[in-house]
Amino acid sequence: MMDRLYIIKIGGNIIDEEAKLSAFLEDFASIEEKKILVHGGGKLATRLAENLGIEQQMVEGRRITDAETLKIVTMVYAGYINKNIVASLQARHCNAIGLCGADGDAILAHKRQHPAPDFGFVGDVDAVNTDLISSMLQKNIAVVFAPITHDRQGQLLNTNADTIAQEIAKAMSALYDVALIYSFEKSGVLLDANDDSTVIPSLNFSYYKELRTKNKIFSGMIPKLDNAFTALDSGVGKVVIGKAEELPALINGTAGTSIIHE
Amino acid sequence: MMDRLYIIKIGGNIIDEEAKLSAFLEDFASIEEKKILVHGGGKLATRLAENLGIEQQMVEGRRITDAETLKIVTMVYAGYINKNIVASLQARHCNAIGLCGADGDAILAHKRQHPAPDFGFVGDVDAVNTDLISSMLQKNIAVVFAPITHDRQGQLLNTNADTIAQEIAKAMSALYDVALIYSFEKSGVLLDANDDSTVIPSLNFSYYKELRTKNKIFSGMIPKLDNAFTALDSGVGKVVIGKAEELPALINGTAGTSIIHE
Repeated sequence: MMDRLYIIKIGGNIIDEEAKLSAFLEDFASIEEKKILVHGGGKLATRLAENLGIEQQMVEGRRITDAETLKIVTMVYAGYINKNIVASLQARHCNAIGLCGADGDAILAHKRQHPAPDFGFVGDVDAVNTDLISSMLQKNIAVVFAPITHDRQGQLLNTNADTIAQEIAKAMSALYDVALIYSFEKSGVLLDANDDSTVIPSLNFSYYKELRTKNKIFSGMIPKLDNAFTALDSGVGKVVIGKAEELPALINGTAGTSIIHE
Repeated sequence: MMDRLYIIKIGGNIIDEEAKLSAFLEDFASIEEKKILVHGGGKLATRLAENLGIEQQMVEGRRITDAETLKIVTMVYAGYINKNIVASLQARHCNAIGLCGADGDAILAHKRQHPAPDFGFVGDVDAVNTDLISSMLQKNIAVVFAPITHDRQGQLLNTNADTIAQEIAKAMSALYDVALIYSFEKSGVLLDANDDSTVIPSLNFSYYKELRTKNKIFSGMIPKLDNAFTALDSGVGKVVIGKAEELPALINGTAGTSIIHE
């Protein structure tokens, strides 16, 4: 039987709130099984860019990662946020190591090629170095990933943190019984996006298709759910989506939405 | 016989010049023995602080690491510089991992206590995690250290990169035959600080004392040299000080100043 591995994605809004982040890290540190944390960025990068007078270029509602933006996200995600999370975990007696995809060639990616628009220095993941990650987990070190990858040509690339969590989960499924948890500000997948009490406890693919047909799924959730089903198809044992403040309950299955195969 | 381990400190001025940094990393990548790189900061942190309108507080000619400055050096040193160096080494087929002292509890420090002045969030090193570092070297991964440590209470601390190189060198001497190389903009220890041709090829402690008595040692070199002799006393096999552009010659002993025991 394979060891259980929790891969937990923490959303940006939690990172922006010191008390919530602190409580979340307390819960994360107390997980006894092997664990990986993937964090996003929060508002700090946007605020830093504003303070430096760097204009955020948007195309089709999405931010373009130009060279200056890449510099900022590398500083904020792989530097400030990543190292502070690691230091906080160490203070909670949880040995942790903070990595970006370039470190130990942990996550190889290539610059996304678009006919148009060009999203800039954005990476799509090609490979996850399971040997490296596994060697750290075996030493009971929690691995904390910043959403920055590299292309082995010296280029760092900005990469969606949800995607990183999913790619790591898929790759690590060869070695571990992986539970992938997307934690964010909502209580789970909701039937009514404005009512946190309408959590769907369990969602299989046919029910998901039915809800999509009826336009019952909030558009922002669709990529997350598509990712979740892809992860299950690729060997990930369990995917749960729910509120970061309820991490222990997400882990023991008493809160959030469990995405299931059948 | 113990394996040779090169621990190379690269000075800030090289980091500021892209072509020089690139050539240096090419030389570093081609070292076949086990290796650790310790980098400083360069002018980027100062420039970022200026652009953000953060005033650098100085006391007795030294910068105070207040909370805002710590945030900036964490972003620049542990984020931007560290991850770009790692990505550049990966592009040169040198597997590398970038760490700060909090990562894997690699370098434990405590906040420096002064009666006055208070230098702020500055760390003095207490312990180096040789097991962690060694496990990476054994996988032929070069370790790249940013000069940020932690106190196991959740506090990151700004720490002098020369000191970090020296502390790692001393600790790793228990496991490896360590050669510590301080590379910077000068050709070595100079008899005339303004004349790069006056390099002292070899400097032992009695000659050093003699030169100091005669005020022949440039004051900026004194802490570096004191550190070098302390390192030799603590089991480091070899200390060399010289020009970053001459790294291969510093390694084979045909350039720079070799600091020797007798």
